[in-house]
Amino acid sequence: MNRHRTIVLLTDFGLRDPYVGVMKGVIAKIAPGATTIDLLHDIPPQDVRAAAVALWAACRYFPPRAIFVAVVDPGVGTRRRILAAETEAGVFLAPDNGLLTLVLRDLPPRRVVSVVAPRYRLERVSSTFHGRDLFAPAAAWLARGVAPARLGPVVREWATLPFAAPRRTPGGCAGDVLWVDRFGNALTGIPGEWVCRGDVVRCGPRRVARVAGTYADAPRGGAVAVVSSAGTLEIAVNGGSAARRFGLRAGSRIAVDAIARERP
Amino acid sequence: MNRHRTIVLLTDFGLRDPYVGVMKGVIAKIAPGATTIDLLHDIPPQDVRAAAVALWAACRYFPPRAIFVAVVDPGVGTRRRILAAETEAGVFLAPDNGLLTLVLRDLPPRRVVSVVAPRYRLERVSSTFHGRDLFAPAAAWLARGVAPARLGPVVREWATLPFAAPRRTPGGCAGDVLWVDRFGNALTGIPGEWVCRGDVVRCGPRRVARVAGTYADAPRGGAVAVVSSAGTLEIAVNGGSAARRFGLRAGSRIAVDAIARERP
Amino acid sequence: MNRHRTIVLLTDFGLRDPYVGVMKGVIAKIAPGATTIDLLHDIPPQDVRAAAVALWAACRYFPPRAIFVAVVDPGVGTRRRILAAETEAGVFLAPDNGLLTLVLRDLPPRRVVSVVAPRYRLERVSSTFHGRDLFAPAAAWLARGVAPARLGPVVREWATLPFAAPRRTPGGCAGDVLWVDRFGNALTGIPGEWVCRGDVVRCGPRRVARVAGTYADAPRGGAVAVVSSAGTLEIAVNGGSAARRFGLRAGSRIAVDAIARERP
Repeated sequence: MNRHRTIVLLTDFGLRDPYVGVMKGVIAKIAPGATTIDLLHDIPPQDVRAAAVALWAACRYFPPRAIFVAVVDPGVGTRRRILAAETEAGVFLAPDNGLLTLVLRDLPPRRVVSVVAPRYRLERVSSTFHGRDLFAPAAAWLARGVAPARLGPVVREWATLPFAAPRRTPGGCAGDVLWVDRFGNALTGIPGEWVCRGDVVRCGPRRVARVAGTYADAPRGGAVAVVSSAGTLEIAVNGGSAARRFGLRAGSRIAVDAIARERP
Repeated sequence: MNRHRTIVLLTDFGLRDPYVGVMKGVIAKIAPGATTIDLLHDIPPQDVRAAAVALWAACRYFPPRAIFVAVVDPGVGTRRRILAAETEAGVFLAPDNGLLTLVLRDLPPRRVVSVVAPRYRLERVSSTFHGRDLFAPAAAWLARGVAPARLGPVVREWATLPFAAPRRTPGGCAGDVLWVDRFGNALTGIPGEWVCRGDVVRCGPRRVARVAGTYADAPRGGAVAVVSSAGTLEIAVNGGSAARRFGLRAGSRIAVDAIARERP
Repeated sequence: MNRHRTIVLLTDFGLRDPYVGVMKGVIAKIAPGATTIDLLHDIPPQDVRAAAVALWAACRYFPPRAIFVAVVDPGVGTRRRILAAETEAGVFLAPDNGLLTLVLRDLPPRRVVSVVAPRYRLERVSSTFHGRDLFAPAAAWLARGVAPARLGPVVREWATLPFAAPRRTPGGCAGDVLWVDRFGNALTGIPGEWVCRGDVVRCGPRRVARVAGTYADAPRGGAVAVVSSAGTLEIAVNGGSAARRFGLRAGSRIAVDAIARERP
């Protein structure tokens, strides 16, 4: 048993049903010494893209050899595969539906297997709750020290979702909103290194903010763009909601006009 | 001290007030080695029936000798008793208001006591927050190895809530919706063994779905009935909400028309 | 390493973003043996007053030497300080924005320092997520046994928020609503010792309830005032919402008319 091996849970199960608690029960039964951390359970139902973004933004902040269990799984009960991907940030368990797209783009996996070994699942497997019957037991056995390779055969290909890569433009750069948070801040995929203070951020033709250092660089109620905690460009309103003010949501297109850095 | 003894919490306290956190503080103070798992805190305020269903559906998935603490307690501060029931799934602490109806129907208790011993409560007991003052300390002392029998005298009777038992009908079977989840899936009390693929599920005169294997057996947006993760019949819409589509909620009557299994 | 040292989290991050999970990841990485308890994450965004009340009402119920991390921080990224205050209830980490007003009023600190030591933060500090980059690491290092004094220099003054103190009046006493909970119960700051059964509770000219022993002393649907679990006066409706019935919210003024205790 590896004491304190960390299992990180990300689901769209919400917290108004017993599903997450039951997954933790299954884990505690198999791996009593494991530490379980809730990353997020309020992913909108079946929103695999949102899950992909949240997992990518968060996964570097957990203990070495963490086991990430991501269950946003519209295909539960079908023949879709369950993947276990070994990376430098830990092992990721997820349905093969593109949920790992961004994680595996940034953390090339050492090995990916298809989780099929009957030994590491519950005795009775339902057709509707693989979080309990397949994902939680597999994670718990990994926490107990079972090697990922023992979960099933190596696979060489897996599903990916199309995420528009951020890109350089003649006037600056452009990219998409990936996430809107509780405060109405809109996280984009545009690398922070691509922008400078003073650059102008637009959504379509509408100018929304200038790049600054932190939220409070705008007056209260004013809009501002900053380098987010994920390292990418974020649009915010100091003390308000940028998403509401500018109608931003995941998928909104953002452009940045670089200010002239040198004048003759 | 029993390391890793698991305490499972179910309340209607929600997560927008400090109540659940305070209960965990009390537990950690008395039993620092215990593992506390949140089963559910978003039971609708004072909905004892919903709590009874959630506890029943979930309780078999926790470690041996788990201690379940269920606080949905409209009678807090009155002379209603607090029960501790020993079963093969662990010890259940709950107010004597019928919350344990379904659990004790399926898991006949070895012993039920009325929790009264002053030694296993906080020094000052409020009239409004027994979760903190009575339930959490009792659970923590159980986790430390105190025998349930030491909490108070044996009781032979306790309150039960009327749950309509599922029943065989001339044409098939019938039962009630017990729970509607975040996805709009409606869990019934009808045993999965009573239905077969192809059986027709009705709500009143309205035909809602046929029994199939899993959600994805229906086309996207189509209705389907499956054997749920609790082992009973569940009505779902693939990628949608069966509750909204068919107006289902806890208490809705469901009938199943068995298809003829053999034709001459 | 101090096994089981408890870290208590209070934020306005909510649970629909990965922020809280990431803070726990950072803590688990630095202090794998620490126990982390969620006190509350649904503080309304940037509502420092609500955070001050919740922390004050809850902080006495955690293990000795608990480490409280309170992040409601509209000034994140500015030069506002981060405080670490040592009290008999444990160490409190919070931005210097008045969040600790009520806690430090009741628990005079032995020492307050400004958290600045680079050694006890993440290597890269963002301008928008100090919960992850500064608060979580500082808490985790405290849990590992680092003395608070090593976090930075002693400070003698800090920000406070104006909370109207409860006061005696010619006819009884008066004070403010501090918190409205999920059930619609309104917690005031009026000490329970100042009121007696039968006293009349008013909101402005409107009489709302009489002081009684517990919720169920009112008929179902009836209003009642009781001594709350925090030891102060609370206004409730048995089986309903006092906040909705009487339009109560944080800041509402409440007066109590003492009934004549002795008649000639």
